Amino acid sequence: MACRWEQNGIRPEGVLVISVSDEGEFGLIRRLASRFPTTPDVVLGSGDDGAVISAPDGRVVITTDLMVEGTHFRREWSAGYDVGRKAAAANLADVVAMGARPTALVVGFAVPPHLPTAWAEALADGLRDECGRVNATVVGGDVVASDAIMVAVSALGDLEGRPPLTRSGARPGDVVALIGTPGRAAAGLAHLMAGEQTHPLVAAHRRPEPDYDAALAVARAGMATAMIDVSDGLLADAGHVAAASGVDIEIDPERVPVAADLAAEPDAGDHVLTGGDDHCFFVTLRSADPRLAVIGQVTATRVGGGSVRLIGGDRHDLRGGHEHFRS
Amino acid sequence: MACRWEQNGIRPEGVLVISVSDEGEFGLIRRLASRFPTTPDVVLGSGDDGAVISAPDGRVVITTDLMVEGTHFRREWSAGYDVGRKAAAANLADVVAMGARPTALVVGFAVPPHLPTAWAEALADGLRDECGRVNATVVGGDVVASDAIMVAVSALGDLEGRPPLTRSGARPGDVVALIGTPGRAAAGLAHLMAGEQTHPLVAAHRRPEPDYDAALAVARAGMATAMIDVSDGLLADAGHVAAASGVDIEIDPERVPVAADLAAEPDAGDHVLTGGDDHCFFVTLRSADPRLAVIGQVTATRVGGGSVRLIGGDRHDLRGGHEHFRS
Repeated sequence: MACRWEQNGIRPEGVLVISVSDEGEFGLIRRLASRFPTTPDVVLGSGDDGAVISAPDGRVVITTDLMVEGTHFRREWSAGYDVGRKAAAANLADVVAMGARPTALVVGFAVPPHLPTAWAEALADGLRDECGRVNATVVGGDVVASDAIMVAVSALGDLEGRPPLTRSGARPGDVVALIGTPGRAAAGLAHLMAGEQTHPLVAAHRRPEPDYDAALAVARAGMATAMIDVSDGLLADAGHVAAASGVDIEIDPERVPVAADLAAEPDAGDHVLTGGDDHCFFVTLRSADPRLAVIGQVTATRVGGGSVRLIGGDRHDLRGGHEHFRS
Repeated sequence: MACRWEQNGIRPEGVLVISVSDEGEFGLIRRLASRFPTTPDVVLGSGDDGAVISAPDGRVVITTDLMVEGTHFRREWSAGYDVGRKAAAANLADVVAMGARPTALVVGFAVPPHLPTAWAEALADGLRDECGRVNATVVGGDVVASDAIMVAVSALGDLEGRPPLTRSGARPGDVVALIGTPGRAAAGLAHLMAGEQTHPLVAAHRRPEPDYDAALAVARAGMATAMIDVSDGLLADAGHVAAASGVDIEIDPERVPVAADLAAEPDAGDHVLTGGDDHCFFVTLRSADPRLAVIGQVTATRVGGGSVRLIGGDRHDLRGGHEHFRS
């Protein structure tokens, strides 16, 4: 491995920084791949044209999500480790929202040549640790040169013999419940944008903590009719379920659980209803589960399906959630 | 759907260009997803948190590849359709090189807001048509805003009950064969870099044409011991097999098949041995298959394994192939 002084010669501090271009593509891949453990689901791990993962159910869930520097994160706000945790969480939450047990991730990593190797290693550690929460692991990837950092994750999951939990299964009479407390990530981002990097809520933007175990327990219990990972915002994602299921959904904002550290925030109500990125799980069930926070109910549609009504308020404009390209 | 005049007002030609920002994320996703057919392997297609794909073998092959504008393609050299074909081919070839039948792709698409929607649609059509060559399809994806175009594809495959064809299975005495003719993509790129956009070989850079059927037939015949998709260059990828298998590999350059349109090129020999991106299949077999071009043999290692020797020449410097970050 060659080492050389960073881009413009010796840096003012005289610190030697090893960048990814010092390692070359294959060196960097080896260095990152060595950080990921194997698991019983890995039949063949990284180092070949593809990996082989167990799919005992005879079907496999697959999902994919991109995170782009400048759009989803900024290096001055998030460490490599944070970005790794968050990129894995977004995908693992999607797998779990289908009612499946996550098994493996593959990761495409676009990286500026002068990115410090330590940043890339920290990203890998974040991916590894988030996967470790559900006994999944990273089984392969691709590394390419790029101007901006981009992390493209795809995740696999096993349905364990159950039907997938889609967005389209909600039926009138179902109860609506939420796993997790929404809005903290959006509040944290607001503090970062206001220059308050030390506010405690920024941790929620950097590293969401989806409750995979609780969501999987609900899927395994067999009473859920629909589930979605709340990534666009509670009302927007409720709207996705309502539209796909052809039903209306009523939500009582007074019953939506609000984390104590969010309750005191000035825009707490907005963050709770429209903030994404906490990766809560929105679920509809044939009957209430005493372990879950019930926040509303599914009703027969009155306007053609797909409407979300706030109890005590007006029908909500579903465009409140996050959408790329919209200003 | 809102339409508006392109970025800087009415363009000189007065042409109305609909860009992806006019559609918004969800509109663009709907527009692209509608272009992909379903197949018998699709249990649940796009439109949910994840897709569900059949995995009848009880194991699933997964691979991933990134293509970045400026690094892998330029918009002035390749149409959206070309980029779609090429992005799919890189992944499908990896799945086939494992000895598996490709079933499904997911695609992460990072896109500048002012990219014409027609470019994105052409990309989708290219992905669809390349998948169609092996009866696979695109089952989901993610669309995000970015400064440069990036296409992150992950592909799944079914091993049909066979062991995976890894890089590590080559044994002394095996014959070495090649499916396809290498070097044309590299020659085409050289012409593009020389400003010769109309040279016939540039088509090979824009759209590789891996012979999936021939490679899958070899896998199904059961005589192959190792297979790799030639994407870094013939000698470099032979080196990957030699290293993983702990053997030496002898290649007779006189026996490597050279396409007629490449033979007349000035640097034909270099392109054949070090050019990637044609996605030929390098295979080792217990005995020769009369349908395949035999180009060499596997020998017991004389120097610790991993060496590639050109018959009639010196042991080759394996750094001849393509590697990101190396200058």
